[in-house]
Amino acid sequence: MIGRPFTARACANIALVKYWGKRDGVRNLPAAGSLSLTLDALTTVTTVRFDPALAADAMTLDGAAASAKVLARTTTWLDRVRELAGVTTRAAIDSVNHFPTASGLASSASGFAALALAATRAAGLDLDGAALSRLARLGSGSAARSIYGGLVRMHAGARVDGDDAIATPIAAAPAFVADLRMIIAEVGGGAPKTHGSRDAMDHCAATSPLYAAWVACLDGDLRAAEAAIAAGDLEALGAVTEGSALAMHAAAIASRPTVLYWQPATLAALAAVRELRGRGVGAWATMDAGPHVKVLTRAGDGAAVAAAMAAVPGVTAVTTATAGPGVEPA
Amino acid sequence: MIGRPFTARACANIALVKYWGKRDGVRNLPAAGSLSLTLDALTTVTTVRFDPALAADAMTLDGAAASAKVLARTTTWLDRVRELAGVTTRAAIDSVNHFPTASGLASSASGFAALALAATRAAGLDLDGAALSRLARLGSGSAARSIYGGLVRMHAGARVDGDDAIATPIAAAPAFVADLRMIIAEVGGGAPKTHGSRDAMDHCAATSPLYAAWVACLDGDLRAAEAAIAAGDLEALGAVTEGSALAMHAAAIASRPTVLYWQPATLAALAAVRELRGRGVGAWATMDAGPHVKVLTRAGDGAAVAAAMAAVPGVTAVTTATAGPGVEPA
Repeated sequence: MIGRPFTARACANIALVKYWGKRDGVRNLPAAGSLSLTLDALTTVTTVRFDPALAADAMTLDGAAASAKVLARTTTWLDRVRELAGVTTRAAIDSVNHFPTASGLASSASGFAALALAATRAAGLDLDGAALSRLARLGSGSAARSIYGGLVRMHAGARVDGDDAIATPIAAAPAFVADLRMIIAEVGGGAPKTHGSRDAMDHCAATSPLYAAWVACLDGDLRAAEAAIAAGDLEALGAVTEGSALAMHAAAIASRPTVLYWQPATLAALAAVRELRGRGVGAWATMDAGPHVKVLTRAGDGAAVAAAMAAVPGVTAVTTATAGPGVEPA
Repeated sequence: MIGRPFTARACANIALVKYWGKRDGVRNLPAAGSLSLTLDALTTVTTVRFDPALAADAMTLDGAAASAKVLARTTTWLDRVRELAGVTTRAAIDSVNHFPTASGLASSASGFAALALAATRAAGLDLDGAALSRLARLGSGSAARSIYGGLVRMHAGARVDGDDAIATPIAAAPAFVADLRMIIAEVGGGAPKTHGSRDAMDHCAATSPLYAAWVACLDGDLRAAEAAIAAGDLEALGAVTEGSALAMHAAAIASRPTVLYWQPATLAALAAVRELRGRGVGAWATMDAGPHVKVLTRAGDGAAVAAAMAAVPGVTAVTTATAGPGVEPA
């Protein structure tokens, strides 16, 4: 029933096979599929209440009024929910990120996943996972994956309208998923991002001579990752994970002018991961549109990997995450 | 006349449009063309004397006996000179690198260019530039370019035997070439290279999903660089220079496992170059198969660029180079 507030919690996720590039910017459709691990350590809790007394949507983020830009993006997105629910009522949204630090780790995935459940329920809708994933994708491509817990596959989809560009959960052995750890090494300074990921994707697609080859390599990487998961082979999954991240950054680095997210400590952290592997520790790096390094490993090596990352000069915080659940009422 | 020693001097060169990848490893034929600037600051002086009393080739490098590996590579290369001269006499080779530091800046280009002139003259041959370039290429792909001074174009060639894979000098306005400066910022530690460039090229060609796209982008970059030189447009030449270097490193970074030559200070130096450009200083970075950063600039900005590079933490030496001559008797 409209008018009643609804609160939802969603976790962030980190792509093991990366998402970088769109086939349709308006519908926010990815150029290729991706594959991710939903993480328990990084969550967003969002409450939505539709209120006939409101003349416009209102939003707080971590207790403060959201910027005009964030509010405008959210209103555009909410219009789709209103359309589905057949209402025009404005909403009050309160969103809080429970992230270990204020590092600028991306919260758009957990944010739009939590919003998708909270807003649709508050609008009186009861959508299935596919419909929630589709809605979340309209807000942020990676949010489509945070609808589900554990290992998740995002599909590029083939339809022009993009209705098949949704995520689905991957059937993996529970023990395999439970044994996964993601060690998040934040590279500090907190210098603002030089490139927002949306603009950077578009710039890379338009100018990088390596972009088309990057998109073309994703199908093989997805198949290799899914085969590794089916076989419970962390070594193989780790190799694809690190290879996909480096190929994505390589495509970005070759943009003209360059899109180079790495800081000196990023390279030092990557070297530390290679050194761990040299010592027989199963550890594989991945990086997103920022300087931080995330390391995929198994539970038994988690403490050693976290200690090695904490010892890297320039690493300002280390968080150990396990597989987290999909979006749920809170 | 055979038996008389001959001494030649050659300069190193730095590619503005990069060479990275072979179409034939045996004949050492490049997968694509490249374009370079020969540099006065880094030279090799080599003396060759064919001596019937020698049972095997003998070689010193910087006054010390060359390693068995270097000697074997040189003997294989000298066999081609002996074939051309119709002799079987063994040679004594003394080669000295006049490089500003012992940093591991590549000396194979100046080394094989000096050797090409010294060995052929000592063997009684008098070859033209094309033949010298072809011979030098058999020793080191980049050595083919050091036969000539200033701006030089390496041609991939189309022949199976590779006889057309040679360098030619680029006709450029003398004032434009004289105004060029290359600021060489060495990134220290002096850690040994993780990947020799030959092995790394082969590994990249075999495993990087971005390698084919890298090779495919070279024709456009070569055309753009040649047009910039013809127009005397340093801004345009600089943009291609930095773009080509980053695309080459991107292709290498995407190798599986990665070929990552950068150290933390490499990134800091790249950031300093971007900052210089942000302040209106014409400065563009290039990097080869190692952690050093070389900055293309004009004479009037050379001191400012050199000072900025010297201020980067982790940069251990800075050298300013101008355009140098082709190989010549010394």
